[in-house]
Amino acid sequence: VAPSAATPSAARDLARIVGAEHVIERPGREWLTDTSAARGLVGRADAVVLPGSAEQVAEVLAWCYAHGQAVVPRGGGTGYAGGAVPIDGGIVVALGRLREVRELEPSAWRMCVEAGLSTADVHRRARESGLLFAPDPGAAEQSQIGGNVATNAGGPHSFKYGVTGDWVTGLQVAVAPGELIEIGGPIRKDAAGYDLRGLFVGSEGTLGIITAVWLTLVPAPETTLPVLAFYPSVATGCAALRAVFEHGVGAAALEFFDAGTLRAAGATLPGGVPEGAGFALLAEADGAEPEARRIHGELREALGPGSLALQDGAPGALWRWRDTVSGAVTTVQGGKLSEDIVVPVDRIAEAIDGTLEIGRRHGLQACSWGHAGDGNLHSTFLLSPGDLEQLALAELAAEELFDLAIALGGSVSGEHGIGWVKGGALSRQWPPGAVRLHEAIKSSFDPAGLLNPGKKQA
Amino acid sequence: VAPSAATPSAARDLARIVGAEHVIERPGREWLTDTSAARGLVGRADAVVLPGSAEQVAEVLAWCYAHGQAVVPRGGGTGYAGGAVPIDGGIVVALGRLREVRELEPSAWRMCVEAGLSTADVHRRARESGLLFAPDPGAAEQSQIGGNVATNAGGPHSFKYGVTGDWVTGLQVAVAPGELIEIGGPIRKDAAGYDLRGLFVGSEGTLGIITAVWLTLVPAPETTLPVLAFYPSVATGCAALRAVFEHGVGAAALEFFDAGTLRAAGATLPGGVPEGAGFALLAEADGAEPEARRIHGELREALGPGSLALQDGAPGALWRWRDTVSGAVTTVQGGKLSEDIVVPVDRIAEAIDGTLEIGRRHGLQACSWGHAGDGNLHSTFLLSPGDLEQLALAELAAEELFDLAIALGGSVSGEHGIGWVKGGALSRQWPPGAVRLHEAIKSSFDPAGLLNPGKKQA
Repeated sequence: VAPSAATPSAARDLARIVGAEHVIERPGREWLTDTSAARGLVGRADAVVLPGSAEQVAEVLAWCYAHGQAVVPRGGGTGYAGGAVPIDGGIVVALGRLREVRELEPSAWRMCVEAGLSTADVHRRARESGLLFAPDPGAAEQSQIGGNVATNAGGPHSFKYGVTGDWVTGLQVAVAPGELIEIGGPIRKDAAGYDLRGLFVGSEGTLGIITAVWLTLVPAPETTLPVLAFYPSVATGCAALRAVFEHGVGAAALEFFDAGTLRAAGATLPGGVPEGAGFALLAEADGAEPEARRIHGELREALGPGSLALQDGAPGALWRWRDTVSGAVTTVQGGKLSEDIVVPVDRIAEAIDGTLEIGRRHGLQACSWGHAGDGNLHSTFLLSPGDLEQLALAELAAEELFDLAIALGGSVSGEHGIGWVKGGALSRQWPPGAVRLHEAIKSSFDPAGLLNPGKKQA
Repeated sequence: VAPSAATPSAARDLARIVGAEHVIERPGREWLTDTSAARGLVGRADAVVLPGSAEQVAEVLAWCYAHGQAVVPRGGGTGYAGGAVPIDGGIVVALGRLREVRELEPSAWRMCVEAGLSTADVHRRARESGLLFAPDPGAAEQSQIGGNVATNAGGPHSFKYGVTGDWVTGLQVAVAPGELIEIGGPIRKDAAGYDLRGLFVGSEGTLGIITAVWLTLVPAPETTLPVLAFYPSVATGCAALRAVFEHGVGAAALEFFDAGTLRAAGATLPGGVPEGAGFALLAEADGAEPEARRIHGELREALGPGSLALQDGAPGALWRWRDTVSGAVTTVQGGKLSEDIVVPVDRIAEAIDGTLEIGRRHGLQACSWGHAGDGNLHSTFLLSPGDLEQLALAELAAEELFDLAIALGGSVSGEHGIGWVKGGALSRQWPPGAVRLHEAIKSSFDPAGLLNPGKKQA
């Protein structure tokens, strides 16, 4: 990809808005990729600008709208779907300088933060006040809260606590053709207008640029008690998962790891992987000490039958290991293509087995792990970097994976969104009438089609 | 209002779709009003049809779209904002015959029900499986789940459990010009398309007609333990409310009742109202027995300082009393105008005092009660039925109430929606850019403007 650059007059105009030191005229690869770089996606941009305020974001958007320039909003660049990659030029608007905590009101369980604050900082600021911001997607130190909201990020604890959007009570957004609006705010309910808040959540920068968010918080649980359960097979493990539901256990998280994942990541698992294990569930109880102990006991009871071993463990060490799983799977061959399909929770065994079956058909090593309680799988095909033939097979395999998710009554994405890499997948999942409404919303919000072009296309 | 009737050919066409016995050609008042009848709102309709299937709903919508006829969807008719009232003729589509439970899967914590099932029946069916559908708006026996979703109904337990939309994972909707679509389904996460699901939730029948909903459920709490706390004043009561937040107590519900409300409804309160009480909080702890006891203890600790009395009580009796409060307030003068403003929870004392102050300015008796933990007030002005001058004053007072909510950083509606009676209020709350997007969504979804005309207008 040839580097491109803003015209001198464009750079001058943008510098006038954000300051010359915050315009990058020949952006390097770090601005042109996200995690989808593993599958070869590298974009090109005419410039990167780093606004210093929400008002500057709106001004940049106004300039782009006036000059017919594409605008690609960018958070931490940790997405898997190419949503933050500038595909075909235009101006990358990076939110990283907007890091202010505008309000933190512990006695009302809420905060208002700017879009560029890291998700880890949001967690920390809440914790310091005895409160919890529960959504916990991976890469929390790198990802930014605005990006989390724009993709409606999930995570292990979504099982109990819901996804990012469930915690957003208000938004400040720069919308076309260049106006800053606020919807909702420091309020816990709102039945007045259409749910514009919900519409911007998960819109992947295609409807507007989120500049600040109002978040609701809850008291932090006193204790978290994980339990790790090993099974000989997918079938026995998924039967145990079903038992957790049947026993009505209020777990905080319910993660799974299949045999291939355990082979890739098991060596560093605290306590190790017992002989013969082909499947594992990582469940967690949380709450006040006695309540967490009670739920932990119920989890052990539900997860016990059919298991090879039940291990308690230190939550810190286990979740730190959990964070290494994706990287460990990458290490096996040096690369991977990892998706994020969702199925009804009672169909998850079929999705796990189906992932392997699809891999086999294409001669690809496959595995899956993810958020079992939410029926949300990171179905993965291993790749050797630079092997374009294998990559093409993996892309085909991913298409079959989407068909499988849809056939099981699920969705092509539970976490990563459509971005660029899943463009067109929604039309297979939604009826034509729904796709038409999806497109009508895009046209209404972005009539010139300049907001993150090519992304989240049905 | 003069009765109106469908033309003979219209009635014939509609009868061909739903059966002649399900077309009401000269509908009586029971089809032309909702709870807003107390302020004089009675509509007129050309016909009422009662489809027997979702497909028939779509066919009726198609017929109306082809013939330029307005369509007014109707659930249980328990709304406060005139949302289900046919203002100026057209076809009322009543969903009451769609009552099937399409799926109930306790071992996956979910159900799929048709729009006309009563909310109480949804609760009962979940409970019979040991599960909880938590949203608990008033009038659960009369209201229908489709109407609850279309207004995003709340209720006392929204404090812990969120509003109706938080429980909806999928929708079947008849959309213009007459197509049945499904979005989401039996899945707990979905990051694929724009959040159409959330957009239909709370859209008050102006974007489509909801015919069925997928609901997620949670294990039912074993025990609920209420505590009722009385205070001499709004200030002392709201200080106790703040203490619940500051202590980080995970209450399930946090309701308030001001002095006027206690005067109106206190006589039937189990345990009575202590001498000198000018404010009360009704809090509830729930969960497994020991956890509910622990939270109950924390509630008593947080609510104690400044209180005149703390009473435990049987949850059944207390919540049955809670259901009578609105009616008891009506009884004082025979009528009332009751709104549902929301404010940041730390501004609630100002909203409660402000309600009284606005009433005083207009010579109206006023009171408020509601969902203190969510900052959601039922601010109410008492009326003598038939006193049109008083009604006009109350309408003015309501406008001032909306201004107060907005000035405090809140919303004109937390539960009832905009409907007909609050038309125009959104433009005072939202910036022009947001109002423009609100209107663009309506035009995209309903280009001919036939879906519940005049409702939810900004």
